[in-house]
Amino acid sequence: MTTQRKAVLVVGAGDATGGEIAKRFAREGFVACVARRNAEKLKPLVDSIEQAGGSARAFGCDARIEEQVIEMFATIEREVGPLHAVIFNIGANVNFSITETTERVYRKVWEMATLAGFLTGREAAKVMLPRGQGTIIFTGATASLRGGKGFSAFAGAKFALRALAQSMARELGPQGIHVAHPIIDGAIDTAFIRDNFPERYAQKEQDGILNPEHIADSYWQLHCQPRDSWTHELDLRPWMETF
Amino acid sequence: MTTQRKAVLVVGAGDATGGEIAKRFAREGFVACVARRNAEKLKPLVDSIEQAGGSARAFGCDARIEEQVIEMFATIEREVGPLHAVIFNIGANVNFSITETTERVYRKVWEMATLAGFLTGREAAKVMLPRGQGTIIFTGATASLRGGKGFSAFAGAKFALRALAQSMARELGPQGIHVAHPIIDGAIDTAFIRDNFPERYAQKEQDGILNPEHIADSYWQLHCQPRDSWTHELDLRPWMETF
Amino acid sequence: MTTQRKAVLVVGAGDATGGEIAKRFAREGFVACVARRNAEKLKPLVDSIEQAGGSARAFGCDARIEEQVIEMFATIEREVGPLHAVIFNIGANVNFSITETTERVYRKVWEMATLAGFLTGREAAKVMLPRGQGTIIFTGATASLRGGKGFSAFAGAKFALRALAQSMARELGPQGIHVAHPIIDGAIDTAFIRDNFPERYAQKEQDGILNPEHIADSYWQLHCQPRDSWTHELDLRPWMETF
Amino acid sequence: MTTQRKAVLVVGAGDATGGEIAKRFAREGFVACVARRNAEKLKPLVDSIEQAGGSARAFGCDARIEEQVIEMFATIEREVGPLHAVIFNIGANVNFSITETTERVYRKVWEMATLAGFLTGREAAKVMLPRGQGTIIFTGATASLRGGKGFSAFAGAKFALRALAQSMARELGPQGIHVAHPIIDGAIDTAFIRDNFPERYAQKEQDGILNPEHIADSYWQLHCQPRDSWTHELDLRPWMETF
Repeated sequence: MTTQRKAVLVVGAGDATGGEIAKRFAREGFVACVARRNAEKLKPLVDSIEQAGGSARAFGCDARIEEQVIEMFATIEREVGPLHAVIFNIGANVNFSITETTERVYRKVWEMATLAGFLTGREAAKVMLPRGQGTIIFTGATASLRGGKGFSAFAGAKFALRALAQSMARELGPQGIHVAHPIIDGAIDTAFIRDNFPERYAQKEQDGILNPEHIADSYWQLHCQPRDSWTHELDLRPWMETF
Repeated sequence: MTTQRKAVLVVGAGDATGGEIAKRFAREGFVACVARRNAEKLKPLVDSIEQAGGSARAFGCDARIEEQVIEMFATIEREVGPLHAVIFNIGANVNFSITETTERVYRKVWEMATLAGFLTGREAAKVMLPRGQGTIIFTGATASLRGGKGFSAFAGAKFALRALAQSMARELGPQGIHVAHPIIDGAIDTAFIRDNFPERYAQKEQDGILNPEHIADSYWQLHCQPRDSWTHELDLRPWMETF
Repeated sequence: MTTQRKAVLVVGAGDATGGEIAKRFAREGFVACVARRNAEKLKPLVDSIEQAGGSARAFGCDARIEEQVIEMFATIEREVGPLHAVIFNIGANVNFSITETTERVYRKVWEMATLAGFLTGREAAKVMLPRGQGTIIFTGATASLRGGKGFSAFAGAKFALRALAQSMARELGPQGIHVAHPIIDGAIDTAFIRDNFPERYAQKEQDGILNPEHIADSYWQLHCQPRDSWTHELDLRPWMETF
Repeated sequence: MTTQRKAVLVVGAGDATGGEIAKRFAREGFVACVARRNAEKLKPLVDSIEQAGGSARAFGCDARIEEQVIEMFATIEREVGPLHAVIFNIGANVNFSITETTERVYRKVWEMATLAGFLTGREAAKVMLPRGQGTIIFTGATASLRGGKGFSAFAGAKFALRALAQSMARELGPQGIHVAHPIIDGAIDTAFIRDNFPERYAQKEQDGILNPEHIADSYWQLHCQPRDSWTHELDLRPWMETF
């Protein structure tokens, strides 16, 4: 373990997207710190990165809990290396009619998809500001731009995350921190889509669903942009997708 | 007390805007139900409405607490009359740099400006849907459309409220419920502006700050729109205001 | 003929919307100046306004031709009265795939829906600025906000008209001129819809298409807004309309 | 000359941005076709590309004239190679108050920045559709998203170009053509900025203005995106830029 190597942190590394982002940065020489509530479940991802010659470290962290997030950042900065990139990738897609949306669901979706993003982003800002550099990326979705029937809770959380990304970009950009908000507008090639939306998944044959490796490429490109030409927001969408 | 008269509920009736909206609907024959945490403080408003010949009723309600909101709606429907219009008007404008935004503030702003709006809007939908009519209005702000330096918490809450309004409009419109989201883009003629922003307040002489009575007129017009031509979103702004 | 009475000008008074706007302002005491290419065709509208006790005057004007627009404004200001409100209401809805959109169509749609709006808006600004007051309204459409398959020409023209409305609002608001851009998002009750989209027209029974009288009410309300609370943009849409 | 090599066409190659895009694609093996009204002025660019080992060809073309655009595409497809990427990069930034905007200026700005884009985009679609692939990029600006004082003409043209890009993306995406609209939000390192805005140009020292090479990198990345994860819109902005 060394404090010389750059570290990346992916919060919400439990799905294919988070995993591929971690792998991508690891291939570029970063130590990939990956976090989800249950660290055990990150073992295959860590193994995969290490077998490919990279370095990775798993963190069990409930990103809705302030102390756990603070602790994780402190550990990484102390034991792993300076965080040059932090990616917040937790979603919480639910769909309920407004009258069937419970207070518990409404609150939980916000805590997972927004509050955890705020805590992650704020702690990232704290470690990056003294160095005057770093990249913070929040993963957006179709619901970041548009409310819809059944989406009161999910769109509320994603709109709020976008407000966070915008506010942080306007505040931290002039201090050297690159804050970006890619909007994933389409189904992603994940076990969830495969198991629950087989018709959608069948479009994979024709590139009709997003390949997480390609999403990871875009995140990496965002990190590499020179500071004279930063992107704050971009969409990513399969060619066949209606928008 | 009668169940024959139409009722309006203004949640967040503690400021000039909420008060004027209540007065406006009362002038049109509605029983004005006005709510804020401390019902005592609503006495001047209720008196003012009654002295003008209208009917009003004050409710002490912490709109962040589900049970209190449910109870208030039940009481109104049972004791006052059918709710034909519900206005959610609670704001929570704060400005902190991202690193100085505490978890407590971030959460509290969302609970006041968003969660309370969700609970209010959901309960309004529940009583209006069986009747296939009604108007639900959520008050928006500049920060509903744009994040900014220091606005992570407030813009997050207002973006999320806008997502709620959009989602409810798309879901409930075809069921006869009119959901609207006026965006107040400017300072309002309130004691808060008078005391804290005297230079801004001086613009009142030239109509440079919003008159709450005129905001109330727009809310009343929204309620009166026939269902073939409903407005979901509109901005309200003084002529001098930069935008 | 008198120069004492306020005048309104509706450019594009050939359809139901333009006609109802003219009638509405006439009922409020304005002299309704109505314009379309062929003044003859305006006779029924003028008769209708006069039979209702109002004053109206028809102008044959190709609003794409600078000289004709300048001449019309001069005539109104000289012979009718000061223009307090000018409404630009010409549309040009076409749908062609991009490869089948001819240069002629692309240019013509822009000239009708944008260039004519620019000329109308500019001349309105010229007569209103010295008086420090007046209302200028540009009619928008769904395509003002969103491009779509087959809409390269129409959306291009409507986006550009929205840019004009925004630019003029930001420039002229602080000089006392109210510039507004209502967005009509749905079918309107017109002969065109009746004859070409019978299924759509059948929704009239359930208020599923916009009543031009109600659109006219909104335009009148925009004109009446006190300058401390102006609306620049609002949508108008039937309750059943998907958006 | 060969018909085997892929060709790129940059319409509006007269500025630094267009030139760097051409160089970038040339470095990747494309034959860089570069166009502006006066082909003579393209000689330094062509020389530079050729000296770096690339291939380039200059076209004198007034892109506002349909016949010239059609002729240029035919020549390239016949003599150079299949167009895999077409970039439209003509701007026409002007600022006049609305009352001082002449019909001639309003029309000319639209012809340069919009009509020429339409003709270029349409002809690109015609050659790409039978092959079911290709990239078409339209350069956007701050004024693509927001009108402003003095920007009636320029914002009108850029809004309309964005409508074109959106409409083409929605129509052509499902046919395999990638249509993108990067929005350049800041000053670019050009002779124009150097000579006219020296204070702005001084920010170059701190990466405060966009480096055209980095813009070109983003355009190249857009072209390289696999079709399962295409970007339609992204912003590019210096870190110091207010937005």
